Amino acid sequence: MVIEDIEVAPPQANEVRIKIVASAVCHTDLYHLFEGMHEDGFPAVLGHEAAGVIESVGSGVTEFQPGDKVIPLFIAQCRECRFCKNPNSNQCEKGWAADRYDVMSTEDSRFTCKGKKVLQFMGTSTFSQYTVMNQMCVAKIDPAAPLDKVCLLGCGVCTGFGAAVNTAKVEPGSTCAVFGLGAVGLAAVMGCKFAGAKRIFAVDTNPDKFEKAKVFGATDFLNPKDHAKPVSAVLAELTGGGVDYALECVGNVGVMRSALESCVKGWGVSVLVGWTDMHDVAARPIQLIAGRTWKGSLFGGFKSKDGVPEMVKAYLDKKVKLDEFITHTMTLAQVNDAVDLMKKGKCIRTVLSVSPQ
Amino acid sequence: MVIEDIEVAPPQANEVRIKIVASAVCHTDLYHLFEGMHEDGFPAVLGHEAAGVIESVGSGVTEFQPGDKVIPLFIAQCRECRFCKNPNSNQCEKGWAADRYDVMSTEDSRFTCKGKKVLQFMGTSTFSQYTVMNQMCVAKIDPAAPLDKVCLLGCGVCTGFGAAVNTAKVEPGSTCAVFGLGAVGLAAVMGCKFAGAKRIFAVDTNPDKFEKAKVFGATDFLNPKDHAKPVSAVLAELTGGGVDYALECVGNVGVMRSALESCVKGWGVSVLVGWTDMHDVAARPIQLIAGRTWKGSLFGGFKSKDGVPEMVKAYLDKKVKLDEFITHTMTLAQVNDAVDLMKKGKCIRTVLSVSPQ
Repeated sequence: MVIEDIEVAPPQANEVRIKIVASAVCHTDLYHLFEGMHEDGFPAVLGHEAAGVIESVGSGVTEFQPGDKVIPLFIAQCRECRFCKNPNSNQCEKGWAADRYDVMSTEDSRFTCKGKKVLQFMGTSTFSQYTVMNQMCVAKIDPAAPLDKVCLLGCGVCTGFGAAVNTAKVEPGSTCAVFGLGAVGLAAVMGCKFAGAKRIFAVDTNPDKFEKAKVFGATDFLNPKDHAKPVSAVLAELTGGGVDYALECVGNVGVMRSALESCVKGWGVSVLVGWTDMHDVAARPIQLIAGRTWKGSLFGGFKSKDGVPEMVKAYLDKKVKLDEFITHTMTLAQVNDAVDLMKKGKCIRTVLSVSPQ
Repeated sequence: MVIEDIEVAPPQANEVRIKIVASAVCHTDLYHLFEGMHEDGFPAVLGHEAAGVIESVGSGVTEFQPGDKVIPLFIAQCRECRFCKNPNSNQCEKGWAADRYDVMSTEDSRFTCKGKKVLQFMGTSTFSQYTVMNQMCVAKIDPAAPLDKVCLLGCGVCTGFGAAVNTAKVEPGSTCAVFGLGAVGLAAVMGCKFAGAKRIFAVDTNPDKFEKAKVFGATDFLNPKDHAKPVSAVLAELTGGGVDYALECVGNVGVMRSALESCVKGWGVSVLVGWTDMHDVAARPIQLIAGRTWKGSLFGGFKSKDGVPEMVKAYLDKKVKLDEFITHTMTLAQVNDAVDLMKKGKCIRTVLSVSPQ
């Protein structure tokens, strides 16, 4: 299957066809490709962190018109289901993840290749000149937004930032630890800083990432490889008992356990942010009985259609950083090189230029 | 070691010696005896759910005087540490569990047997005519309180009730499930009802317990053995996606997992209430990423010295039930029979009469 053979049907009633301008590579694309390996998940068009312009709209669409700048959303916001109506949840029951998160590519797709169905990944599939999506999965954004930057708000930056601000609800003056300093982890550091944390430990086995973490607000740096003790014991020593908030941004169940164990008893909150569903995550019951809380965050807890335009505005108002995440720019034709860069841990974000803005 | 050979030293500076009037048998006594089997945990005097009268006080004690009715507390409330000062925690850093919850019997004890130290279990050791405790681990209660009833507030009833009210923070109109219908589970049912839950599923593999659960407010009854599907799937069907709150009151890691999986995505909260530390508790990361929260509760989240007198008052005001938990009464000399009854699941609570009131 080569990119030139993919066809994208026109939008149906409540759908829009989006011309993708820029799409970044996120680790979840690699997860589906190399790790999750769901047997029914292919062939699919990957890509889910993007920005573009409405190209055409279905007959029932009133909210969008051609030329609108948009960000595709991998979680819907239908505004009608009980999850959308509950202020504490962003888990809309519509869209690709309605029933099961493990089926990451679905047949509800307008893509074909030589007449055969190609699956849509996370309801988005943005490694493509065009994609077709239901309007409840599209956010209209400020026309002033540079699409080659705000594309990062389609996944990683909202996921990490929101995990700190919305899910952990980091409080001013608190102590935080962020495990894993990819784009999601760096955004979590930025979220902790934004929420007023006093001390932010950046934890990674690759010390090359510490300099970037400092840019986003990290105050302390910890490489687990430098210590004979478990990282949770090191953090307990450095903080007099553990951190108030620990965010796991790797997608590794061992790190998830460490993050929980790094929290102070009594009120510590640990949040699973990294995406994985291959193995159980485990802990001793006493970790929770002693007063810790274990949560998870999907898309940073943002209600997608509401949250993304607000984050775009926050970027335009210089309240959140985006440019600093981008280490590489390439074209869509170089997507395999970009995937390879991420696999080797050589980039934070590579933005692929898909069409002219 | 026989009961007649145990000696109890006088109280030291900040300690009181308590004449135990009534002590109930709780599953945590059996856990230490038969399950936890911590190698350093014996010989010890068991018992931790009791009520009594101050017999004598140490030189530094101003808060108590002989004749005061009291309930021994297995968690301290020193009122000075950062955990006591934080309104969201009851995990005082003083007392037996200061460092490690797995060491359930400590040498900080005034018990001896023929000149050799006998350990104090959970800082209390109430299967004894007398026990000596630091004043920060003792609650003075209303003189009108019947000690053979309010002894249950020393552990099980506060633990279950508070897990629903303080830890899960059950909301009016919500749907709850309580797994395990021993005293802790029944108290959790009572807590859900008190908090205004609309529907309370009582879950147990022993259907004989359902009648009692109804007394405390359960509305629906579920025996996992009656279903081929996992109980989480049954609850999801019956509730359109899962319950808002699921409380595990067994102390079994498999049930803890089921309870989490029984919660609705988006906002479901599951609380570990049963005490165990022998095995890991595990779940798929997606269970949390989908918006569920996993917590634990120790002594129902009650700050011990503050909470117990309030619960005694609630009982005297007929706002909470206690009498209905008591299925058997015996004497201290029959403690082994009482332990045997609980081991066989034949009782809810057996109250041992230790000394006249």
